Amino acid sequence: MTYRMPPTRQRFVLTLLLGLLLPAMALADAPLASWNDGPAKSSIVAFVHAVTDPGSKHFVPPPERIAVFDNDGTLWSEQPAYFELMFAFDEIKRNAPRHPEWKTTQPFKAVLENDHKALSAAGMNGLLKIVGATHTGMTTEAFDDAAKTWLSQARHPKTGKPYTEMIYQPMLELLDYLRSQDFKTYIVSGGDTAFMRAFADRVYGIPPEQVIGTTFVTAFQYQDGHALIQRTAKLAHNDDGPGKPESIDAIIGRRPILAFGNSDGDLQMLQWTAAGTGQRFMGLVHHTDAKREWAYDRSSSIGKLDKALDEANQRGWTVVDMATQWRRVYPGDAPEPELVQ
Amino acid sequence: MTYRMPPTRQRFVLTLLLGLLLPAMALADAPLASWNDGPAKSSIVAFVHAVTDPGSKHFVPPPERIAVFDNDGTLWSEQPAYFELMFAFDEIKRNAPRHPEWKTTQPFKAVLENDHKALSAAGMNGLLKIVGATHTGMTTEAFDDAAKTWLSQARHPKTGKPYTEMIYQPMLELLDYLRSQDFKTYIVSGGDTAFMRAFADRVYGIPPEQVIGTTFVTAFQYQDGHALIQRTAKLAHNDDGPGKPESIDAIIGRRPILAFGNSDGDLQMLQWTAAGTGQRFMGLVHHTDAKREWAYDRSSSIGKLDKALDEANQRGWTVVDMATQWRRVYPGDAPEPELVQ
Repeated sequence: MTYRMPPTRQRFVLTLLLGLLLPAMALADAPLASWNDGPAKSSIVAFVHAVTDPGSKHFVPPPERIAVFDNDGTLWSEQPAYFELMFAFDEIKRNAPRHPEWKTTQPFKAVLENDHKALSAAGMNGLLKIVGATHTGMTTEAFDDAAKTWLSQARHPKTGKPYTEMIYQPMLELLDYLRSQDFKTYIVSGGDTAFMRAFADRVYGIPPEQVIGTTFVTAFQYQDGHALIQRTAKLAHNDDGPGKPESIDAIIGRRPILAFGNSDGDLQMLQWTAAGTGQRFMGLVHHTDAKREWAYDRSSSIGKLDKALDEANQRGWTVVDMATQWRRVYPGDAPEPELVQ
Repeated sequence: MTYRMPPTRQRFVLTLLLGLLLPAMALADAPLASWNDGPAKSSIVAFVHAVTDPGSKHFVPPPERIAVFDNDGTLWSEQPAYFELMFAFDEIKRNAPRHPEWKTTQPFKAVLENDHKALSAAGMNGLLKIVGATHTGMTTEAFDDAAKTWLSQARHPKTGKPYTEMIYQPMLELLDYLRSQDFKTYIVSGGDTAFMRAFADRVYGIPPEQVIGTTFVTAFQYQDGHALIQRTAKLAHNDDGPGKPESIDAIIGRRPILAFGNSDGDLQMLQWTAAGTGQRFMGLVHHTDAKREWAYDRSSSIGKLDKALDEANQRGWTVVDMATQWRRVYPGDAPEPELVQ
């Protein structure tokens, strides 16, 4: 028994269906709305099609679709200093009343007095003392609380925004796009793992078990049914440079097929990704946008991009020129007109 | 327009549907077929219902359904010695031609001559030398190859089975059952992470990124587009005892709601799990089955279960009496008749 619609009715139903389907199709076709139709977006889309199309010779099964992202300078801003360092400075000030000795001891004195010159003079060793004093010597729970409280209250000195609103809208869209194509998205970054976990799930949709970073040795303590994990001052893993492929291997145990960074500290992660078999995607965010964000690369003390930029250019990796490839930077920004390149 | 079936036809269709549906429903109701209807199975099922029923006050959202399992003695057998140690002994023999000095150096000499007395005398220090010589000083790729080759060829001295067939059928069913209820299943074990990854995905359905174990420091090396990761002899993390909650926190970053072990080395992982808020499941496999597997606990040098057994009994954790709770042990065994308890 078959029911045949009259021809006029057929046309009406077809129009209705198209009206319903076309906007949805357009959306599905535009998963990277804050990216201009330029070379960066094209290379991303071409790669994703190649590895997800079951008919493609470059097809990668979903469990092997591992994508790794640096955090500072790749998913959120990192100027005028790593945001985690701003947290550490604020924590020194917050905890100063319980540490009267800091008033007279460097590098703490420099932080309390906003003495940039003395802080610079304290160098890397001074910074490590500040990180140690604010990141260790407490339980994992207390550290998580401190990080979350700071993230909810602190504002960036230049933009006045909460730090978690200085994340890159185009990169959020890239994370979403990859996940919609059955990629598993990881952070692999020099930041403290626990600090990044305090916001990564809420802000990037990246759950704690997909956040890999620098870690300190911890110590399990137990008494009468009460358990805690104490953060000690001993560094367990420095997740920078060669530490990135090392932690990827130790924790994920699979080689990524896509890696995104923005500095020389990401070079080894990109090399490790590139050296695998099959099609791979290696990307660098190039900070070229002094107007909407910051412009810096080869000579910057933060997020220095020099060797990795040379290697990317030599080997044809995707270098994302922020000024021309991104229609907006932060989620709160109005998108600029589409620029077809 | 509605079509009404004649009553006799209705009954026929109903019977047909019931005939099709009932066996399927019975299967769905029996996810732990190799477990007797005893206290262990009941406590598992009651826990899973409590945390997965959206109407339950103990409901846990899927992303937080983290389940952790020890490996040796919990997911597969561990007698007469940890299987990974059997691998190490075989590797010493395989590599001996390239190490003529081993013929005259302990503890290697003892392994080559099957000299159990000398091996015992070499103690823990001797074992560490054997593990070092067979687990480090090669690339991650070469180690993975060696482990996979051994697993495919070696046979257990007592059962004659491949080691990967000496996994526990009831635990495989438990892993499947938990995953069907949106749990994420992890291994957290004293074994070398890379050794366990060589079979965990294929044998347990646990992917590399959900295998946590003991690790050595690795070193990324790169030249002219060729990248490798070298395994060094320096221990990075000993994933036993307090090392288990420490690695769970470092790598997963969430507290498990279910933990399963079989020895005192799992006690801290069980304590950490138990000390969380809400409903929790803590389980121990108790090796009571000399006939089908092995019987050992308080005085065993391998898989010693003493303090954890006391604490489990005191605190009402689930102790799985292998002899009475499991209808079969290995996948190749015929199931014993259902024992309703």
